[in-house]
Amino acid sequence: MANKSLAKLPTELTILVTGGAGFIGSHTCVELLAKGFNVVIVDDLSNSSEVAVERVRKIAGVGADRCAFHEANVLDRDAMEAIFSEHDVDAIIHFAGFKAVGESVRKPLEYYWNNIAGTLVLCDVARNHGVKNIVFSSSATVYGEPEFVPITEDCPKHSATNPYGQTKTMLEQVLTDLYVGDNEWNVVLLRYFNPIGAHESGLIGEDPKGIPNNLVPYVAQVAVGKLAAVGVFGDDYPTPDGTGVRDYIHVVDLARGHVAALDWMGGKVGTGEPSGLGSIQGEAQADGSRRGVGIFNLGTGKGSSVLDVIHAFERACGKTIPYEIKPRRAGDIATNYAACDKAQRELGWVAQYDLDRMCSDSWRWQSMNPDGYATKA
Amino acid sequence: MANKSLAKLPTELTILVTGGAGFIGSHTCVELLAKGFNVVIVDDLSNSSEVAVERVRKIAGVGADRCAFHEANVLDRDAMEAIFSEHDVDAIIHFAGFKAVGESVRKPLEYYWNNIAGTLVLCDVARNHGVKNIVFSSSATVYGEPEFVPITEDCPKHSATNPYGQTKTMLEQVLTDLYVGDNEWNVVLLRYFNPIGAHESGLIGEDPKGIPNNLVPYVAQVAVGKLAAVGVFGDDYPTPDGTGVRDYIHVVDLARGHVAALDWMGGKVGTGEPSGLGSIQGEAQADGSRRGVGIFNLGTGKGSSVLDVIHAFERACGKTIPYEIKPRRAGDIATNYAACDKAQRELGWVAQYDLDRMCSDSWRWQSMNPDGYATKA
Repeated sequence: MANKSLAKLPTELTILVTGGAGFIGSHTCVELLAKGFNVVIVDDLSNSSEVAVERVRKIAGVGADRCAFHEANVLDRDAMEAIFSEHDVDAIIHFAGFKAVGESVRKPLEYYWNNIAGTLVLCDVARNHGVKNIVFSSSATVYGEPEFVPITEDCPKHSATNPYGQTKTMLEQVLTDLYVGDNEWNVVLLRYFNPIGAHESGLIGEDPKGIPNNLVPYVAQVAVGKLAAVGVFGDDYPTPDGTGVRDYIHVVDLARGHVAALDWMGGKVGTGEPSGLGSIQGEAQADGSRRGVGIFNLGTGKGSSVLDVIHAFERACGKTIPYEIKPRRAGDIATNYAACDKAQRELGWVAQYDLDRMCSDSWRWQSMNPDGYATKA
Repeated sequence: MANKSLAKLPTELTILVTGGAGFIGSHTCVELLAKGFNVVIVDDLSNSSEVAVERVRKIAGVGADRCAFHEANVLDRDAMEAIFSEHDVDAIIHFAGFKAVGESVRKPLEYYWNNIAGTLVLCDVARNHGVKNIVFSSSATVYGEPEFVPITEDCPKHSATNPYGQTKTMLEQVLTDLYVGDNEWNVVLLRYFNPIGAHESGLIGEDPKGIPNNLVPYVAQVAVGKLAAVGVFGDDYPTPDGTGVRDYIHVVDLARGHVAALDWMGGKVGTGEPSGLGSIQGEAQADGSRRGVGIFNLGTGKGSSVLDVIHAFERACGKTIPYEIKPRRAGDIATNYAACDKAQRELGWVAQYDLDRMCSDSWRWQSMNPDGYATKA
């Protein structure tokens, strides 16, 4: 079956967003709606809240007609069939997936089943409905310990050290193979670096269950008084201040990268001559839309240390953040940041917000919603 | 839940063999039954015949009590639950999976779903029944273009060039992660080189549907007059006669490697000090049985060229096999054979049959069953 073309106005396009109630998903829905796209959120709410959907609609000033919501797991073939039958979906942005690194080590079968089998069901139902446009939520974890920094898209992939990371690597392969087997597919793999921050409204943000796994939500909970001190794992790395350096990116910038990817797939941006770097360029389409596999890093291209983040957050919240130096964690690397030239050249996308802005937006979200979406209004 | 111990007599053990009606599966069942194990075959017959099950019982001189059969796909959770409830399974030998390289390129979603999701369902149901012993049917394809020959088990893995091969690589990772997350698991990954031959009775053998993908079944069908000539892809490789060199192994030797693996898991063979080479040794068990991830090449350690195989088959069948030199195929490598020292040292296993024996057994099967299991008696 022929794939649907994305060479249309946003208002003529409907985007299915799996995991659309989650952290990156909810911010992406806001950016899509702001550009005029119609959105259908599918989320099983296993690690998110329906309140996020309400907040997305509130920020965008739209109702369920422009931003539909279905509580379902992408593994549920019957539910997915019903959703694709009800909505005339043009493309998928696929965020849904378990994402806790440590938990994935303890529950590999659950992670492989949910993330891999879920994606296979999603793609199967989608193609049966003539939808072969997909943007996949990948990760810099596919580079493993990178062979060089800044990391370009053609940096060799290395084995991830945990099942969560493996699912990203494996799904990149699966989606690439979909295109190889059927050149109607139009796939974009977005490799995220470290998304933090929140929407400037303070209405949506990261809402981890239990003790946060990631640095900034942890710092935010220390700032708000829910946790005592930040653990800094290692201060003897070969970095300017000895703590690990990562490429933090504002979640709103990241969200806009997804909109840019859809525009690119529809032939609305880009040089038309992909630079290679892992991408596979398909045959040119008469209407200008693309086919193939596009791979893009989404980061800022700038590294910040753990202490940089803590100090930026201190400036944002006006408090001192206590921290404790602890031993290095197995598997952590010293320095990791992206080369983002390709996304700039092809997608016309570049991250705009700096670390101070990321922290001030995180702090606004955290202080307005100390218990996340469970906060009483 | 604690895993079942394999430190028992074969007669006290029941082995679930998925894909047990297939080529390698059926020969493995024969060897298991000969050693006294009880066998439960699960096979969906999508690429095999129930006649093979009847023949296995005939060769072994057993009935359905020692060799049960269930027509089911391992993806069918309800069916698998019923099978594990009916039989007191101690270990799994997991052969079931799609295996046609070319078809996998055209149908990636079907291959990933059947092979990966199927294995995930199988493992989930198994552990719920306290069965965490599994021997997995892997392949030398995980080495990709090998960094050195002979290939040892610690040769770096490289990306396969097709989804079939990817599923082998991915499932090795999944099964390894099962052990990492739960040290009760006892996993053996057997990397097969090129299995050919047939049982000496001529009652079971390889029965490919349509035009064979592999060399020996193709040669056999030329010998029996069903196909005109063998295509030899490339005669300008840097090998003694210019044609590709592979490590062919008699399927009965390969089958015995699986029995040896079960004995090893039960602590009945081996030095108790695995050589590393990719394996992960778990904690010693009081009864001598093992836990961990054992990785073994199963080959002969000897390379034979395409022309060697054709000439050996000519000697076996007493006919001239016409062949045509064709261009090289993309992705083919010159030389590929195994180092099998580890299997010899740890499993006490070594391949016994030479190329002439492989071809004479293949020819007996082919000439007695020119249409495979569909041959009228």
